[in-house]
Amino acid sequence: MNASNNPVDVVAQTTRSDLKSWVSSANDGTTDFPIQNLPFGIFTNRDSQVTRVGVAIGDWIVDLAALETTRLLTIPYSAVDNDGNPKSVFRQKQLNDFVSMGPAVWRSVRSQLSALLSEDSAELRDNAQLRERAMVRQSEAVMHLPFDIPGYTDFYSSREHATNVGSMFRDPRNALMPNWLEIPIGYNGRASSVVVSGTPVRRPNGQRKEPDDARPTYGPCQRLDIELETGFFIGVGSTLGSTISAKTADEHIFGMVLLNDWSARDIQQWEYQPLGPFNSKGFATTISPWVVTMDALTPFRVEQPVQEPQPLAYLCGAERAGVDLNLEVRLKPQAAESATTIARTNFKHMYWSMAQQLAHHTSGGCNTRVGDLMGSGTVSGPESDSAGTDAGSFGSLLELTWNGQKPLDIGYGQVRRFIEDGDELTLLGWCQGDGYRVGFGACVGKILPALELAAE
Amino acid sequence: MNASNNPVDVVAQTTRSDLKSWVSSANDGTTDFPIQNLPFGIFTNRDSQVTRVGVAIGDWIVDLAALETTRLLTIPYSAVDNDGNPKSVFRQKQLNDFVSMGPAVWRSVRSQLSALLSEDSAELRDNAQLRERAMVRQSEAVMHLPFDIPGYTDFYSSREHATNVGSMFRDPRNALMPNWLEIPIGYNGRASSVVVSGTPVRRPNGQRKEPDDARPTYGPCQRLDIELETGFFIGVGSTLGSTISAKTADEHIFGMVLLNDWSARDIQQWEYQPLGPFNSKGFATTISPWVVTMDALTPFRVEQPVQEPQPLAYLCGAERAGVDLNLEVRLKPQAAESATTIARTNFKHMYWSMAQQLAHHTSGGCNTRVGDLMGSGTVSGPESDSAGTDAGSFGSLLELTWNGQKPLDIGYGQVRRFIEDGDELTLLGWCQGDGYRVGFGACVGKILPALELAAE
Repeated sequence: MNASNNPVDVVAQTTRSDLKSWVSSANDGTTDFPIQNLPFGIFTNRDSQVTRVGVAIGDWIVDLAALETTRLLTIPYSAVDNDGNPKSVFRQKQLNDFVSMGPAVWRSVRSQLSALLSEDSAELRDNAQLRERAMVRQSEAVMHLPFDIPGYTDFYSSREHATNVGSMFRDPRNALMPNWLEIPIGYNGRASSVVVSGTPVRRPNGQRKEPDDARPTYGPCQRLDIELETGFFIGVGSTLGSTISAKTADEHIFGMVLLNDWSARDIQQWEYQPLGPFNSKGFATTISPWVVTMDALTPFRVEQPVQEPQPLAYLCGAERAGVDLNLEVRLKPQAAESATTIARTNFKHMYWSMAQQLAHHTSGGCNTRVGDLMGSGTVSGPESDSAGTDAGSFGSLLELTWNGQKPLDIGYGQVRRFIEDGDELTLLGWCQGDGYRVGFGACVGKILPALELAAE
Repeated sequence: MNASNNPVDVVAQTTRSDLKSWVSSANDGTTDFPIQNLPFGIFTNRDSQVTRVGVAIGDWIVDLAALETTRLLTIPYSAVDNDGNPKSVFRQKQLNDFVSMGPAVWRSVRSQLSALLSEDSAELRDNAQLRERAMVRQSEAVMHLPFDIPGYTDFYSSREHATNVGSMFRDPRNALMPNWLEIPIGYNGRASSVVVSGTPVRRPNGQRKEPDDARPTYGPCQRLDIELETGFFIGVGSTLGSTISAKTADEHIFGMVLLNDWSARDIQQWEYQPLGPFNSKGFATTISPWVVTMDALTPFRVEQPVQEPQPLAYLCGAERAGVDLNLEVRLKPQAAESATTIARTNFKHMYWSMAQQLAHHTSGGCNTRVGDLMGSGTVSGPESDSAGTDAGSFGSLLELTWNGQKPLDIGYGQVRRFIEDGDELTLLGWCQGDGYRVGFGACVGKILPALELAAE
């Protein structure tokens, strides 16, 4: 076990690139889940329908609820329920109770797991009976939403994305709104419809009105789209009336996921003025099931892009606020054998950082709670067609097809302007280390046809 | 006890205008809480810091957690916790567990309480020992937020308010956006900062930029405002992918509260495009503590205003969708002896009904959950100066002072353009019956000065 409780030491120890695990599938260099990652999630499996906390390692899940009963995993202080009785923070429907225990507990658990799974640690490796109970194959598990999400906020922080959208719908010469370079623009999203990867997504019905229509109609969305985003989860909340500085904002963040902000463009276009998107976004938001901790991402932190003009003081002070995180979107048509990559980009291009988003969110005293989810906004890179690949760097079909004007060849003799029924969309993300990658797993959603409307 | 379980019979029996209670303060014709009302809330008092469900009657609160131990109050089936053990739905921090039991339980409890509190019922009236335990003076109780609120949505449903705002900030000749007459426009608000009446509200700091400023600045809001609204709580949720029809929407609503959507107009003006209000609203939303059930409001339901053009079919079908509910705003400056009424209006003017709001909210398949709060939007009547009173019918200072251009005389030799530090704002609401009124109690918030900014 790691002897130091110093956070910097724990991070350095648990992210060393030469670490190997006795779980062989964790060491192949291509898995999303090497021993340097150790992301947290909620799962059930065939043997037990009890939801519990797990940590991914190679092709496996470590069952923390099983481990804690063996004293191989201890938490520094005990959790209690509302009546003061001891409770397990790992035998839960979500990560909220565990994460509420605070960063010292997160780091302690991460450190213990790193030690327990390292190749020279025998305690779990050589205990077949315990391994049988505590190690679950990912292929035999069902993943659940990792957090009970009390609030979901979505930002709009890619300069390239905001410029593209502004060019299409407003004025190419003044594509960015005057406030965009001053404010990490965001809005409140709908938390109830955040779903975990793999949940089918039904095409929404809604009100649309094309410019030449006299009246709107209610019916299936005609311009269904993805938005390639990341999200971060609040691990340390803040009270009403207090603020979080940009400089210390990262200390409030537990970890990150991939996030697909499904968007009904025709509904959005008609509804969004003056109070913002509503039903065009509220039908579903898909996130990846494994929450990659900020500790695991530490080696991949980079400076964010230079900001001109320099933002107001309350938005400044965070260092290495960006993350060098490769992102990819794949589309698999119904009955196709494999998926086509339609976009490749990198999270490091984001103009506004997570720290700035959180500082702005709380700058008026708005409180935050453990499990609050904050989306990055669509991550778009600078190129419509990435050099050397057949995929652009834009994070939405709206941009990739320039609002449907430039159909996208997805192979199989098919093109797409927007998403069709039966299409399966997958987001992927990973940070490339030296001989390993810290990945997010897949964020997948397949589109079901819209509900038929009742006859009037 | 009422013998019938038929909802129509229960409502008719419990709202009869000739009902009287043995609680004398419930019968004076001016209390908000006659026996016809029986609103639900969460309270503690000096004797017990255990949060529990109470029902208001005159100057008193009936402690349902105390009553249920006596068998004077029973619920038709028992609630269980996650482990299958029986639990009290009344000894809770919020109404969610009770309300989750469904309308048959709400009506059963309402019916039992109506019988128990009626003037000819001796069981509680003549049991001094039990009264001592189960009846708590409102003056000695602290009220808490009634629900754990998983989602907060705010609508924009007063035609007069939308027209006033559109006239001020866009074009008086085209004040309403083209979508306004087709869509009950709404947006997701911030649930974390919804607070109960009496909670002080701190003036937010935020980014503002006046037209002539080269850059924005960060500092105390200069144009702090109220929005006079009502809110309704979801009592029966709906699943992801399903819709709620306008015709049956009322069956999903548990009850209503008053809601003050505090608004920082200068922050709002600078931030709101293109994704809607965010920090200008997220610092606080105050609601009244007592949830008045839809059953209690039944005698006061009225037809909503005529809608032209007739909305699309999915928004039609609700009958008597309005509520004849008088609303009032009072402002009390720091150190003033009494408050001045600055606005009087009525909820019956609202163009879009609660049923239409809920039908629209779910029309794309967005799910709803027990405790979701939906705000009406600012309730503004047709007159800037109400006939025969010194108070206008507009529900915000923005409208009452026409964005500060027409200062409002509030007495005491003072005028207001917007809210000043130390001002206490109170919303009141009541339905006028024959010899009694079904009221909401007060929704109060006093403004504290903004936090001082840290030196840079």
